[in-house]
Amino acid sequence: MKDAGEHETIAAIGRNAPSSRNGDDAAVLASPAPNSRTVVSTDALVSGRHFNPNWTSAYHLGRKAITQNFADIEAMGARPIAAVAALAAPAHTPLAAIEDLARGMNARLTDYSAELVGGDITQAPTLTIAVTAIGLIGGDKPPLTLNAARPGQKLVAAGNIGHAAAGLALLSKLGPDNIPTHLTHLVRAQLDPQLVPNRGLVARATGATAMTDNSDGLITDLTAIATASNVRIDIHTNAIQPTPELAHAAQICHTDPWEWILSGGEDHTLLATTVHEPPSGFRIIGHVSKQRGHLPVSIDGENPPYNRGWQAFDKPATT
Amino acid sequence: MKDAGEHETIAAIGRNAPSSRNGDDAAVLASPAPNSRTVVSTDALVSGRHFNPNWTSAYHLGRKAITQNFADIEAMGARPIAAVAALAAPAHTPLAAIEDLARGMNARLTDYSAELVGGDITQAPTLTIAVTAIGLIGGDKPPLTLNAARPGQKLVAAGNIGHAAAGLALLSKLGPDNIPTHLTHLVRAQLDPQLVPNRGLVARATGATAMTDNSDGLITDLTAIATASNVRIDIHTNAIQPTPELAHAAQICHTDPWEWILSGGEDHTLLATTVHEPPSGFRIIGHVSKQRGHLPVSIDGENPPYNRGWQAFDKPATT
Repeated sequence: MKDAGEHETIAAIGRNAPSSRNGDDAAVLASPAPNSRTVVSTDALVSGRHFNPNWTSAYHLGRKAITQNFADIEAMGARPIAAVAALAAPAHTPLAAIEDLARGMNARLTDYSAELVGGDITQAPTLTIAVTAIGLIGGDKPPLTLNAARPGQKLVAAGNIGHAAAGLALLSKLGPDNIPTHLTHLVRAQLDPQLVPNRGLVARATGATAMTDNSDGLITDLTAIATASNVRIDIHTNAIQPTPELAHAAQICHTDPWEWILSGGEDHTLLATTVHEPPSGFRIIGHVSKQRGHLPVSIDGENPPYNRGWQAFDKPATT
Repeated sequence: MKDAGEHETIAAIGRNAPSSRNGDDAAVLASPAPNSRTVVSTDALVSGRHFNPNWTSAYHLGRKAITQNFADIEAMGARPIAAVAALAAPAHTPLAAIEDLARGMNARLTDYSAELVGGDITQAPTLTIAVTAIGLIGGDKPPLTLNAARPGQKLVAAGNIGHAAAGLALLSKLGPDNIPTHLTHLVRAQLDPQLVPNRGLVARATGATAMTDNSDGLITDLTAIATASNVRIDIHTNAIQPTPELAHAAQICHTDPWEWILSGGEDHTLLATTVHEPPSGFRIIGHVSKQRGHLPVSIDGENPPYNRGWQAFDKPATT
């Protein structure tokens, strides 16, 4: 990258993630339909913190950087339309890796008919990619916010829960080259979360009211909804049982699969509340009731055993 | 920051840069006027690369992170309305520094009636702040793009040129505590560039066609316009003469002030082309003519002496 220089590096990104909107001081996005509103969210991936560069290819890193940001746009019931990326990378980063990163972003963007409309690249000791996602939300219905869950609603989910954490544990325990074939989907959930585009749009269109994505852990993310909405959310144990593969992975890692399910996060599975039948792609995993006591989220009515969730910081020193 | 934890750190940012749009998976911005388009740009500041943490207070870092991004929005002729910030910081960063950073961002945002509508915070070895700015542009006039300069137009500028580079050189030479009083405005130009809000809007309203900001160096930035527009841009030496203070700073630093003026960058001064009188706050510094030969930018008709510009990467090893 250092030898290629900034100009050639930016050109390489443009070739691999093309957009006619890119290349000026800022990108101008098309005039939206009347009553459209713009939706914006940002999330960074830092080497050594959010990913292990020995396990994560540049291509998958690019995909994941888009996926996790578009999940936040989808979690509002909005449609992702564009992204910008601020990339900081060590001078020795091969240009081919930057190209792979751009191709990964572009592949995921294309799933949504979206484009990389701008960016920034700079040299830094630690590889960091900060993506900002831009979406549109139209029509009269409100966006699907954390504070809109209501007693009597079902809790519904689209996607797997606990798989990304299981994949991380397997990578830590066995390394990337020794994953049993029947468990590779768990590793893939960690390295390249598989989200079906536009399920958030569908959820809003079919009457869901609150939504978030499972990024920090099931209990943590549902606590955000329950607290903002002043409700109790009860999860049905039967609906989130570990699959045989998840149970096997837990055996290998000498851990309890329920820790992954309840506090793993990083699945970016959409979690919504609705009074209607589950939207296409969603299944019922719990229900919303009136706030009772100080427990925002329960499991079959009980206090959940794992509730810490993914941490952006190291644990504070315990005394 | 590590002891405060993620939750308290985010809360501290929210107290110091408040917005009712913040706090959900993504921020929903108000429905714009008909024919409004959204404008988006991103730029990161990396410790040790874009700023020296020994010279730059967290408050000024926050201000500059907003200023440099809003300059890109203004350079399209658009109105900045919001920003999101992805912050990566070492665990030992004091919470007070995060608060100062948020206050700095908020002070600059408030100059534009804009708000910090979202963000992300994570632990990382190197302090990095990646801001994405969001703006609106309305009406029938096109945005002010790089490719819209035309022969016969004036080149106009709003703001100082070379001051930020002079400030950096003074800080390197003398340290932050030994700057002569009559040169402190140069240091301020480096640490806290002083842009008057909405000059970009005014330039578009009064008929400017192309615009950019002086971020990478005058020659580099004008070359971007000249190349995209297929024109020659000629700078008038008389219009960009070093001030007595700039000349004195150059004496102190044993350098040629013209290097700062022509290749310094980081001033974020708006550079525009127009056939009309200079818009309010702008002055004439050159003119646009037909493309001739291979020289996109000239100074009084000659090849400019300093044309390298600010570099995001280290210089490649010379052989």
